[in-house]
Amino acid sequence: MQELSSTLVAYPGNLFGCFSSNRLTKDICGGYLWRLEFPQTHRQVDPEDKKNQFGGDARLVVLVSLSEKSLYSIMGSVHISSHEARLACRQNQLTNTSGLAPGYLQANLLILPAQHATDFHDLCLRNPVSCPLLGKTMTPGDPITVQPAGCIQSPDFDIRTDFPQYRIYLKGKYLESRKDLLDVWTSSHVGFLIGCSFSFEDALTAAGLQPRHQRTGTIVAMYRSNIPLLPAGIFTGGHCVVSMRPYRPEEVERVREVTRPYLSTHGEPVAWGWEGAKQLGITEINKPDFGEPQVFEKGEVPVFWACGVTPQMAVEAAGDRIKGLVFSHEPGHMLVTDWTAANLDKLRPGII
Amino acid sequence: MQELSSTLVAYPGNLFGCFSSNRLTKDICGGYLWRLEFPQTHRQVDPEDKKNQFGGDARLVVLVSLSEKSLYSIMGSVHISSHEARLACRQNQLTNTSGLAPGYLQANLLILPAQHATDFHDLCLRNPVSCPLLGKTMTPGDPITVQPAGCIQSPDFDIRTDFPQYRIYLKGKYLESRKDLLDVWTSSHVGFLIGCSFSFEDALTAAGLQPRHQRTGTIVAMYRSNIPLLPAGIFTGGHCVVSMRPYRPEEVERVREVTRPYLSTHGEPVAWGWEGAKQLGITEINKPDFGEPQVFEKGEVPVFWACGVTPQMAVEAAGDRIKGLVFSHEPGHMLVTDWTAANLDKLRPGII
Repeated sequence: MQELSSTLVAYPGNLFGCFSSNRLTKDICGGYLWRLEFPQTHRQVDPEDKKNQFGGDARLVVLVSLSEKSLYSIMGSVHISSHEARLACRQNQLTNTSGLAPGYLQANLLILPAQHATDFHDLCLRNPVSCPLLGKTMTPGDPITVQPAGCIQSPDFDIRTDFPQYRIYLKGKYLESRKDLLDVWTSSHVGFLIGCSFSFEDALTAAGLQPRHQRTGTIVAMYRSNIPLLPAGIFTGGHCVVSMRPYRPEEVERVREVTRPYLSTHGEPVAWGWEGAKQLGITEINKPDFGEPQVFEKGEVPVFWACGVTPQMAVEAAGDRIKGLVFSHEPGHMLVTDWTAANLDKLRPGII
Repeated sequence: MQELSSTLVAYPGNLFGCFSSNRLTKDICGGYLWRLEFPQTHRQVDPEDKKNQFGGDARLVVLVSLSEKSLYSIMGSVHISSHEARLACRQNQLTNTSGLAPGYLQANLLILPAQHATDFHDLCLRNPVSCPLLGKTMTPGDPITVQPAGCIQSPDFDIRTDFPQYRIYLKGKYLESRKDLLDVWTSSHVGFLIGCSFSFEDALTAAGLQPRHQRTGTIVAMYRSNIPLLPAGIFTGGHCVVSMRPYRPEEVERVREVTRPYLSTHGEPVAWGWEGAKQLGITEINKPDFGEPQVFEKGEVPVFWACGVTPQMAVEAAGDRIKGLVFSHEPGHMLVTDWTAANLDKLRPGII
């Protein structure tokens, strides 16, 4: 915590606080994230003081408002339930979901007209490392019901509102971002929930390998790679997007081991090291295509995972072969599902 | 048939015949392929005459012995059951299995020591287009029992004998080919059956798109491509092998449609056209890495599918990280399973 608070200097803005105890979260935070009013200038946070004030099981976590970007970033983990996380996102109380509700699997999104749903489903089945399915809406036009039922267990779910932010595409081109899809959703739309690498970040943290972007309160860096997306129907010519986390070379094997079981949320890395970056066609590590650049400490190398932004590249490549509006999540801004790491085995790619 | 017989001139050797009627196959051929003694020189085959001789439901199919290569190649289709096909392969009565037992799904093979089985299984789950699983042996050392049970339903099955030909690898290097694995199999070996594109060739033929290698009695052309095999455990640095069939550009969409449902036997093509060949890094179409070069007719372009020889490339790339002997099938020389096209839906990648 000392390290966290010391990095706050770099991030002017409001501070938000939340506590790991469910009782505290619900009683004091009203079920959502709790706002601590700090001055704009840096002020030392003393976690011991907070702990004493709120009881022994309270664990202080901090969100930093990057007010100049209108984004909230989490530093560390926010221990709330998956349902609480969805409510917070629905009410636009936070955006970047890395570190949110540890233990629950997070999902990327692609929504498209029903006539293209089979082709997109095939695309996911053929490319399960970048597009692993965690669930899909049951019938065209129904934004509420997701199958398998274990994916979302709260009856108030709505795929049009429960992501922090959405993107809208027409004929493969990005049009704009929205906080919800209520006025653009149609009776023919079908939604696909695609596993997100944020799901294994708490396992990395537990292994002493906390991702850099969680420590610096930034959005994970994402790059377009040259890994071809194997075509399915109208979806031809796409390529995989990869997310990147810096690690020391001697940590890479352990990082691979920790993330390997997460087959349905991208699993182990697809490439690593500077040679790996080159093989993926990534030449400017400080210029990610999505998210924010990451700080490399001395001797660290990039480690790349497939990324659920890939379907958006498939949509771009399909271009005007897609009839009607397509919606996705905003990169880094995920849905927290009710699946947990304990469900990983029954979520092996291809089962949905 | 006239066209088939006219091409026989190019292939000196013995002729083998088999008939589609089960009664004829069993009564006249003794359950296996039936040998017609023809002279070494070309002799006109009159299918009408054979049909009259053996009854209205007999359909003449022809195997041509390429005696100079010690290979038998099928021209057209051999309508026998999956079990009969396995018996014929076990008794080394044929090798190239393209066109054999239409309707049944055919399988590639990789057998490796149990300590590497989980990594290889993960590799298949992460790369289901090139490595789609149709089945695996149940316990290390047991060469008889395959799961799911529907894959092989005859109790006499033996994974060490029922492929026409095998390859042996040590530390990622090809050592030699064998007709069976009886004296090299150990109590730790585990076998994986991987879908083969021969499985959809009868569907192509039924759509008027018979693969060229079936018409010319050659082994399908296969190439190493630059599509990366997404790593799993010790299996890093591998690339996909692709098979190639020539078609006219205007046939490509229909070819894609016909093969699309075969998700568990490589499914639709991964690339097509001369530009597609270039993107895969294939510059010499007449010099395949496995199988035989294919004849292009005027205006035809190459169409590429992922190929189940890919695991052998993964083994080569893993090199001495693999402890113990690894076995595979000989490219083009498959196992005929008891799965049929009707089982495709329950064989979606990831289910096994």
